[in-house]
Parts: sequence; structure tokens; C-alpha cells
Amino acid sequence: MINQAPWCVPVNPDRPVDPMPDEGVTAIHETAMRILEEIGIAFYNPEAVAVLKQAGCRVEGETVRMGRDFVAEMLSHAPARWTITPRNPDRRITIGGNHILFGNVSSPPNYWDLELGRKQPGTRDLFRKFLRLSQYYNCIHFIGGYPVEPVDLHPATRHLDAIRDKLLLTDKVPHAYALGAERVEDGMEMVRLAAGLAQEEFDASPRMFTNINSTSPLKHDYPMLDGWMRMARRGQGLIVSPFTLAGAMAPVTMVGAVAQSLAEGLSAIALAQYIRPGAPCAFGTFTSNVDMKSGAPAFGTPEYMRATQITGQMCRFYGLPMRSSGACAANVPDGQAMWETSNSLWAAVQSGSHVVYHAAGWLEGGLIASPEKFVMDCEVLGQMLRYFDPSLWRTDPGDLAYDAIAEVRHEGHFFGIQHTQDRYQSAFWQPSLSDWRNFEGWQAQGGVWTAERANLLYRRVLEDYREPPIPDDARAALTEFVEKRRAEGGAPRDF
Amino acid sequence: MINQAPWCVPVNPDRPVDPMPDEGVTAIHETAMRILEEIGIAFYNPEAVAVLKQAGCRVEGETVRMGRDFVAEMLSHAPARWTITPRNPDRRITIGGNHILFGNVSSPPNYWDLELGRKQPGTRDLFRKFLRLSQYYNCIHFIGGYPVEPVDLHPATRHLDAIRDKLLLTDKVPHAYALGAERVEDGMEMVRLAAGLAQEEFDASPRMFTNINSTSPLKHDYPMLDGWMRMARRGQGLIVSPFTLAGAMAPVTMVGAVAQSLAEGLSAIALAQYIRPGAPCAFGTFTSNVDMKSGAPAFGTPEYMRATQITGQMCRFYGLPMRSSGACAANVPDGQAMWETSNSLWAAVQSGSHVVYHAAGWLEGGLIASPEKFVMDCEVLGQMLRYFDPSLWRTDPGDLAYDAIAEVRHEGHFFGIQHTQDRYQSAFWQPSLSDWRNFEGWQAQGGVWTAERANLLYRRVLEDYREPPIPDDARAALTEFVEKRRAEGGAPRDF
Repeated sequence: MINQAPWCVPVNPDRPVDPMPDEGVTAIHETAMRILEEIGIAFYNPEAVAVLKQAGCRVEGETVRMGRDFVAEMLSHAPARWTITPRNPDRRITIGGNHILFGNVSSPPNYWDLELGRKQPGTRDLFRKFLRLSQYYNCIHFIGGYPVEPVDLHPATRHLDAIRDKLLLTDKVPHAYALGAERVEDGMEMVRLAAGLAQEEFDASPRMFTNINSTSPLKHDYPMLDGWMRMARRGQGLIVSPFTLAGAMAPVTMVGAVAQSLAEGLSAIALAQYIRPGAPCAFGTFTSNVDMKSGAPAFGTPEYMRATQITGQMCRFYGLPMRSSGACAANVPDGQAMWETSNSLWAAVQSGSHVVYHAAGWLEGGLIASPEKFVMDCEVLGQMLRYFDPSLWRTDPGDLAYDAIAEVRHEGHFFGIQHTQDRYQSAFWQPSLSDWRNFEGWQAQGGVWTAERANLLYRRVLEDYREPPIPDDARAALTEFVEKRRAEGGAPRDF
Repeated sequence: MINQAPWCVPVNPDRPVDPMPDEGVTAIHETAMRILEEIGIAFYNPEAVAVLKQAGCRVEGETVRMGRDFVAEMLSHAPARWTITPRNPDRRITIGGNHILFGNVSSPPNYWDLELGRKQPGTRDLFRKFLRLSQYYNCIHFIGGYPVEPVDLHPATRHLDAIRDKLLLTDKVPHAYALGAERVEDGMEMVRLAAGLAQEEFDASPRMFTNINSTSPLKHDYPMLDGWMRMARRGQGLIVSPFTLAGAMAPVTMVGAVAQSLAEGLSAIALAQYIRPGAPCAFGTFTSNVDMKSGAPAFGTPEYMRATQITGQMCRFYGLPMRSSGACAANVPDGQAMWETSNSLWAAVQSGSHVVYHAAGWLEGGLIASPEKFVMDCEVLGQMLRYFDPSLWRTDPGDLAYDAIAEVRHEGHFFGIQHTQDRYQSAFWQPSLSDWRNFEGWQAQGGVWTAERANLLYRRVLEDYREPPIPDDARAALTEFVEKRRAEGGAPRDF
């Protein structure tokens, strides 16, 4: 119903922007290695500490110091490119190479829409709304964390209902939170059941992923490490994204913040590679700056953009796939929201990012999910997919159009000629939300601003949404598992 | 009063995005040359035709065919880099090299602001408002055409009052329209008088510039050619920007539209170089696409971005400085306006553009100038200037911040430490319009959306604006000239 290109796993053909000379890469690497060797990382998880001690790292209490040779050896096992295959194998994605993939906003506690006009805590209904939007848009390639927190679901069993919703309402690559043993094990089991896989099949290749954040500066917490190790053992996708806000949890200088983020992230990747050599890992950047007057985080700033590009250079140096984000500080889907998000998304493209988290729906530094912002972002992402299309710079004779130019010469126009007739239907990206009419035409239709149009559009999309098919036995197995685990009490511990 | 970096002529350090392989460049060049040699360009100006005939081009009526050897010889005279020095020499700009320069929106017939809430024709008061905004913002490097058409000024003398306003309210590089002999000659004389220059001093180096558009497909009109040749003879800055809307006045394929635009633009540059070898020229791209359903022009689309980048490749091939734009189709300063403008501006950066016309204030495909959009765009441009700052990826020990990281270790934060104290005031770009507060803080201040904040900001900027000084004798000479020319009837012919 809306104009969108078919599902594909896009290729970003642009050469990345490399701000630094090679010496800059070396200097940041050297700093990250000194942090790992001399300061060390605090692993607040006894099992992780024991594993790293066994691996030969120097351990003092919770502080683990790892030598650069060990880190290099572990990184040599990490694949530069890997796939994730969800329950619908047509939705398989490749992480690495020149691919770039977009995912929905993840983890906001709150919801905002234009009719509501205020912030409210997320609910399961709202959560399901975003799952439907994420499934509908072909520019959304994977389902990240909860697109809004369904706080009306009891914490002990929330993951069961939420992951079931995710597996039934979408057929794209799913994520599970690394928030303690039960949630991670339940998540893996549910993904396995939804795809109808034997345990060995599930373990054989990635079917899902998690994303952990270090607790900057220089710490990894218990539940995230626990989930990280469980997912590593079973060969599932692993992304570590230090949240290094320069001037707050990281140095006020962007290259210092990037160096710290690398030390934090590489230490987790080394752990995963020691546990399962070849574990599919990606490095996530979440380095930005704060407003030095208020301490408020900022996103899509010039500092954010360069930190993302610098991280891209470092990821290429380490041979690791990279994750970045589509982020903004704005509270409502207005002009600021779109210039900040555009800056973030172009930084993702320019940095050679492979995975772009939070690419649709994010407001207020990630504290609000908004359906209007979601469809506005999808309009921008749809344009990016077309931007990646090499037919735009193909120079076959029909593209060069000499004959068409010779036909029209100095008078007339190209509207009616055969060259145009043959191509006009697919020549240009078609908008779904953008209004390209002149002022009078736009005014005659009510003079509706983008955010209001987005409100109308997202509701049309929800009407048009169709649930993806799933075999009856897989659906039944999921329900049975959820009810069994609910009866057992779910995940009694919360983090 | 607002946060802005000091005046500078910025350097764009990023390597341009080159979508095409070398064969693509050759194929487009070959097509442009075939257009010039075989189809020819219509020059609707007998003097231009006579000059080109004398130069050895094949002339049939108004159609001029020029051989590739002639074009190459003429292009060999065109400087890759040149300066323009306005009446305040501190505002000198360099066009070419790695510089990137931004100018105000130019030539909209209409005005829109949030209080007015509707479109109205431009007036001198509104025109002067934009001149003050353009002077105030350091991210605006030159004053393009009329930022809004002052239609309450009589057409015969409008250029006299408008150029005087421009020369008194700003001290940045001025532009004059190539709209007939009187307007061009008056414009040059007024720029000379404002700077207190002798005629030979004016002729010795560029003090101003004009921008002409071809009448696509493949035509140049009488007044623009007339102004072009007059300015060429006196060594002033020359930009030719074919308005090649793919699917309308140019082929529906983007590389075909670029090839046509090159043929049109290079023919004018060849003319200028024959008249005055070494004349300071730049090639302007204005290639975009139309909505194939309505024929409405679109801007900031993926097709627009790639056409801009492709044109950048071609300009580097020809050794010519390049102009592009900050453009959008949106009618009001909302989300669509900012994603379209962001796309245009990032394409300017990625293409290695040297001159970015319409970089602030443009709406409705250039038919509306808006002060809210102006300050929103300046917020984005201010971020771009910071984005260009190499200190962001410098890797001196203080930037790498190992000692700071060692000091904070696993606990605490970076807010209070000396490393942060020494740097925090200049570490990050500071916003003037962006609101980075959380939702509650933003709501407590009224929950004001960006366009409304921009309305408040532009009025504060106008209050803070100060007229740049000009010597009394220069001011008197300008006034005397304007009154003399007014008494003579100004420019009786209109185009």
C-alpha cells in the first residue's frame, strides 16, 4: 500500500570516510591496549573472571588485565562476516562485508505520540504496535530489543510474553536481552522452537543476537556477562556497545572516548572468542558527547559523527563488523529530531557501519519511542536504500541518454518521449510521507506538517499490516513453553 | 549572543564520495562532448554567437557547435581556485581547493514565517531582514541573489536599492543578477564604489560574482549571456548552474541529466575563457528529479544526492570549482524540510562542493524564503563547520587521554577531573537552537517545537545584529550613484 522497495540485504557501496591517518589508528590502538594491559577491566562476574584467569590474563579481584598478544590472538578468531537466520530463512541477514542493516528503536521506557501529546510508560499494546511497524517496513532488517518497554507485563514473565509477541508478529531476526540466566536461556529456547530447530541446528549457526553495554568506565556487569557467555557458547550473535559519553563516563576528548570504548568492547569480544573461537561478534559504538552545561547527552552532533567514523576505522583495523545508531536528543518528531537523526544515519553510512540500531522511532536520547518518528525515519531509510542502488550511476548508453537528448534538442521537454516512458515508473524513489506538492496544493489539502502526516501514515500502516505465517506446531510449542515457564515463575531475579 | 564559531573560510577535509569508476567519468565526458559537437547549444544572444564564431565554433543560426579540442583548450585557462574580495577584505573567500562556502537562499518570490502562517510576496523590509541574518551568521560566507524578491521596489530601479541595501547591511561577498546590461553594469559600479576601488583595481581581481542558469535543454538566454560576458570581461566571479530536472528538462536518467548539464555549463565557461582567458568560473549543479506523478520538482532525494556526487567527480575531472545547493521541496520548516535539506547539504560535503548556494532559508523548492528555516539551517551549518575541525581526530597524548582514563579507572566519572576542566569549554559544539534537555525539562519550558524556537531565535538575532561599518565617502558615493541612476530611469527593460 505504501511505496517501498522489496526486502533486500543492502550493500553500502560508498568508501568509508576515514578522518585519521594510519598513525591515528595506531595511536588509538596503542592506547586501548595500554588500558587493557595496565589499567584492566572490571568483570563483575566470577565465572567470567575465572575463564579469563584460565586464559592467562592477570587477575586481581575483579580486575582483569589482558596482554595485547592475547587480545590479538582472540580477535584473529572473530569472523569479519557472519549471518543470522531467523525463523523465516528469507529474512536471513549478513553482518559484515559491505552490508548495512537497520533495526527498530530498542529499549525506551516511554511512549509518545501526537494524539496523546505527552509521555507515558510503554505497554504491551504499544510494544506490539512497534513490532507490527518493524515487520511492515522492508527497510527494517532486524528486531532489536523491546521497541518500548511493556511495563504492564510482570517483570518475571515479561520476557516470555514479549519474545512470543516478537516471534509471532514478526519473522525477522530477533534479539534477546542479556539480563540473567533465565531470560537468556528462555529467549534462545523460544527462538529455537519458533523456527522448529533441533538443539544442534540452533547451535550450528546464529539464529538471534544480543547486545550488551559495558558499564563505563571500564566495567562489565554480572547479568550482561552471564548472557554474553551463554550466547557465545551457543554461537549466537554478540554485539558489545560501550556507552561512552565523552565528558561523563569517558574522557572529554573524542579519540580518548573511542580508545576507552575499544578497551571495554574488545575485552568482551576476547572473552567470547576464548569461550568459543569463531563466535560471531560485532563492535558497537555509542560514543557521543554531553552538554557541558547540563550534563545532558547529545546525539547526532559533529563530535558524535566523527567518533562514529573513527570507530569505523578502528573496526576495519581489527577486522570486526561494526554497529552504530540512528539517534537524536530531540523530544518530539520535529526539525531538530530529523537533522540529528540524519546526522547519525549519515555517520553510520560514512563509517561503514554494518548494523544500525535504533534506526527508526527514537526520541529523547532513547527514552521515548514514537510511531510518528518511526515512519519518518523509515522514509529517510527508504531513501538511503535507493541511495545505495548502483543503477543510479550506471553509464550504459540508455543511461547516458545521448539519443534522447538529440531527440529533444533545444526545444520541448522530456516528459513525453519514449526514453522517459520506458523508465519513469522506476526511475526515481517514490515517497510515502514526503509531500512534494507546491505550497498551494499542500495548503489545499489542509497544510499538514510532517509529524501530523506521520500520525496518519503510521495508522494506515498498522491497518495494512499482516501477521507473517508460522506453522501451527511452532506456535503451539511456543505457547506451551511460555505457559510452562510462567507456571515455574519465569525469571524471579531482576537486574 | 548566540553560540557561533568565529568567521573562517572552512576546509572540508573529507575525501569526496566518488560513485563512478573512471570509465563512468569518461563515458559522461564523451556524452557531453558529443552533445557539444553534434547537437550544439542554442545561444540566444547575437554577440555571444559572434564571439564563438570568431573562436572557430560551427554556427548555424543560434546553434553553436564546439569541438572537444576547443572546449579542452578553453578549460585549460580556467583556474581551479580563485578568490573574491568584498569591501571588507577580512571577508575574502577562496573558491576551490578544499574550501567549502555557504550562502543564503536566493531568489524566492515569496516569504513565509510562523506568525504570518501563510505565503506572501517578498518586500524590501523582508529582503533586509534576510540580509541582516546573512551578515550575522558566520557560517554564511557570501550573499547570493536576493534572499527574497523585494517586489515593492519598482523593477526598473529595484536592483539599485537592493544592491545598496546589500552593500550597506552586509560586508560579505556580493552577487548581482545577470539580467541585462544596466543591472550588471550598475551592480559592478556599486560594488566598486562601496569598496572605494579605482576601475583598474576592480578589474584586477574578483570582487563579486554572478550565477546564471541555462534554459534547459541546451539553451542560454539573452540577458544571462549578456551579463555573463560583461562580468567575464571585468574578471568577476562566474557560476553557471543548468537547472536540469531529470524527466522534465533533462533525461529521466541521472547520468544523462548530468551529461546534459555539463554540455550546457561547459559551453558558457568556454565562452568566458575565450573572452578573458583565466576568467574565474565555477560549474554549478542543479540536477534533481521530478515527481513523475505530478511533475513537481523534488530536492534532497537519493537521485539528487548521487547526481551531485557524480557532478563532483566530473568537476574534478575538468579541474573546475563546483557549486551545489541546500534544497528541499517541503513547504514549512518541519521534519521533511530538515531531512531533505540535510540530504542536500551532506551531498554538498560528499561531492567536494566549493560553493553551497541556498544553504539557509529555502523552502518550497526555492519559491519561499523563511527566517525560521534560515536559523534552523544555520544550526546545521554550524555543526558542519565543527565537523570539519581536525582537532576532533587529533591523537596527541592529551587527546588520547590515557592518563585521564588511568585516573578515573573503574569507578567515578570524568566530570570533575583536571583533563575535563582544562577542555570542557571548547570540547564540544554548542547549540543555539537545539534543545537537549530531557522531555520534562523541555516540557517545563513550554514544550516548544523547533520551528517555534526558531521563530524566537531569529527575532533575537535581528535585535543583536549590528550594521557593518563603511566609510562615509563610500556610503555617499553609493547614494549619489543610486539617485543619479534612478533619475536616469534605472534599467528600463525587464526580462
